[in-house]
Amino acid sequence: MTQDQYKQLDLDDPLASIRPMFYLPEDRIYLDGNSLGPLLKRVESRLQKTIRDEWGKDLIASWNRHNWINLSLTVAEKIAPLLGAGAGQVICADSVSINLFKLIVTALQLNPARAQVLTVEEMFPTDLYMVQGLEKLLGADRCSLQSVKEINLIEHIDEQTNLVLISHVNFRTGYLNDLKRITEAAHDHGAMVLVDLSHSAGVLPIELDAIEVDFAVGCGYKFLNGGPGAPAFLYVNARHQDQVEQPLSGWMGHQAPFDFSPDYVPRAGIAQYQSGTPGIIGLSALDEAMDLWQEVQISAVRKKSISLTELFIKRVQDANDLEELVPVSPLDAGERGSQVSFSHKSGYEIVQALIAQGIICDYRQPDILRFGFSPLYNSHRDVVKTVELLNDIVKNKRYLDPEYGVRHGVT
Amino acid sequence: MTQDQYKQLDLDDPLASIRPMFYLPEDRIYLDGNSLGPLLKRVESRLQKTIRDEWGKDLIASWNRHNWINLSLTVAEKIAPLLGAGAGQVICADSVSINLFKLIVTALQLNPARAQVLTVEEMFPTDLYMVQGLEKLLGADRCSLQSVKEINLIEHIDEQTNLVLISHVNFRTGYLNDLKRITEAAHDHGAMVLVDLSHSAGVLPIELDAIEVDFAVGCGYKFLNGGPGAPAFLYVNARHQDQVEQPLSGWMGHQAPFDFSPDYVPRAGIAQYQSGTPGIIGLSALDEAMDLWQEVQISAVRKKSISLTELFIKRVQDANDLEELVPVSPLDAGERGSQVSFSHKSGYEIVQALIAQGIICDYRQPDILRFGFSPLYNSHRDVVKTVELLNDIVKNKRYLDPEYGVRHGVT
Repeated sequence: MTQDQYKQLDLDDPLASIRPMFYLPEDRIYLDGNSLGPLLKRVESRLQKTIRDEWGKDLIASWNRHNWINLSLTVAEKIAPLLGAGAGQVICADSVSINLFKLIVTALQLNPARAQVLTVEEMFPTDLYMVQGLEKLLGADRCSLQSVKEINLIEHIDEQTNLVLISHVNFRTGYLNDLKRITEAAHDHGAMVLVDLSHSAGVLPIELDAIEVDFAVGCGYKFLNGGPGAPAFLYVNARHQDQVEQPLSGWMGHQAPFDFSPDYVPRAGIAQYQSGTPGIIGLSALDEAMDLWQEVQISAVRKKSISLTELFIKRVQDANDLEELVPVSPLDAGERGSQVSFSHKSGYEIVQALIAQGIICDYRQPDILRFGFSPLYNSHRDVVKTVELLNDIVKNKRYLDPEYGVRHGVT
Repeated sequence: MTQDQYKQLDLDDPLASIRPMFYLPEDRIYLDGNSLGPLLKRVESRLQKTIRDEWGKDLIASWNRHNWINLSLTVAEKIAPLLGAGAGQVICADSVSINLFKLIVTALQLNPARAQVLTVEEMFPTDLYMVQGLEKLLGADRCSLQSVKEINLIEHIDEQTNLVLISHVNFRTGYLNDLKRITEAAHDHGAMVLVDLSHSAGVLPIELDAIEVDFAVGCGYKFLNGGPGAPAFLYVNARHQDQVEQPLSGWMGHQAPFDFSPDYVPRAGIAQYQSGTPGIIGLSALDEAMDLWQEVQISAVRKKSISLTELFIKRVQDANDLEELVPVSPLDAGERGSQVSFSHKSGYEIVQALIAQGIICDYRQPDILRFGFSPLYNSHRDVVKTVELLNDIVKNKRYLDPEYGVRHGVT
């Protein structure tokens, strides 16, 4: 590919019509959709309606008139196809952390003879922390965390393992776990799998039902563009439903919440995984953001995602002065999510210099530059411009100049 | 008071200037602010800013630039004065249900020798359900629910009791518990108190610190007007902080979440009671709604609340044809929150008839008509109009006419 051939990729992009549906600052390139997805114009309109017309005008009647009462399920059914999940297995509720708690306890209850939750050291920390909280609460004989290196995970699954807890895509490296292989290995040993889809839902195809994954959680505010701190979702495979009660048994998971009965009786199916009253404004934003997928194929998203990350890696590797940047992400696209990380001893300073010039990416401890690519709005041109600027910053050591961003008038 | 003297009460109302700050439907009287507070105009403006300018324009940078990262604490510090709580003891997070779980476990951990959670049968059900979930999770030797009649609560507190769990104001009857007396009785027996402030925060003075209450939870979407499913809050008295770790140990409660350390270390103080990533749009609404209190004294709110509920009860009692309505709420204002309930065998039908005529109140099983009064926007005129209509509906048995609402063209 010659220097300019990327332009044809953008001209041929079947997703090119999606970008104008987002508010994106004209003077910046946004490569942080893996952390916070941008605002869809339709979401702004929907929230005006939710706030002024529903809350403002119809007030309490909105719970029925605008079906707030079922919104957690309505939104979930829109997310389900992106997860490869049939109906009745997904619900929106709470945060990823809280949902992890519900599902880890569910797994421990389904097979109380096994206490081990096996995970990887490179896991997103909140997943580890929630298991640590449960360990302290229940004692090691009921919940016992074991963390191993991600690359060695499968060999550690054995007859002690209750639950294998993994991220589909590693938040730091972008490593894409082989969910099918891990699930098969877990099931071979009588263990279950709980996968955190926070960095994969909405950016690559997922097949929870086909792979027979047991449980999943995920995040509404990254590639699903549901807004800052959007409600999270969780998945319980139908075969595990209605056998145990989830522990955070709030009234919204009750069979008949408005009977105000003093005794908890869970609703049938996935609905019991709700706890308290859901945040309606946040749910409305996510609901509207999910409607975008009526016109977008996840296979097209994945194809473009690979094209973007391949181009990014190749351009960085081709640039004469970028050999100091060490790839942290897999170079094989089949093992990579939609983000690319490099390490550099001055990673923090380089990221600050990029941000000062309008390239929004992020830094992760201890030395990682992280670039997320969302095919819904990022272009190949974004990739090329980013590498050009990155090359200038690294080659000319502009990251050592504290005035660099200031001088260019960018804050 | 003569028939028209109520007009002077509205003319003299020091809170009269607050009502125009809300969106309220002109053709309705809203007596359900105890269930969902209405939209403040300033909240609509703030949310436009949060959505378009913060999320839309500044994207991920908003976590620092607009201080999203501390918003849970910022909002909490605005709620604290309404609770009589000094700094560093309140945080906004999750739902009431989830916060109950964190605090009940905290109490059980502080005094593991005692397993009993003593509560009242008339409690709002989610409070009961959360204890029931914990009972199943931890076993009766670590958590044991005992429910007694509200009126007999104090005599059941003994050396078995770990925690007394009560509502400040009963959701069904409006009964206002004597928090000071209950707390003293609990402390006399070495027990702690967790109070649910959902139906009292924002409508009457609360003195958590002065009374030495141990823990509290409460709701942002009722008298605080924070929007449907607004984030909840919780209070941990300073003397109980930093002694145990709360069990839902998500990354936002970590000492240094962005270090991404594999080991959970709680933040000092109240901040550890956060779990996952907070919903920023919901928090922003509540934050803005709380700024109203810069110009409102809670003592004035309580004074008007008593005036409204006294007038309501008196007018109902004075009406010749309302003797079928049996008061469920205390007739002594000192024992009553800001809501009044009556029972009637056709309670459901009467409430439907009222709603059809634009009086928004609600029905609670099995036969209760519930009227909530929010002094920020309800007037004495609202009270008088409501009783007039209620009298017509009951006297003329209009609630038996399924066409009643339809004929008047109101839906």
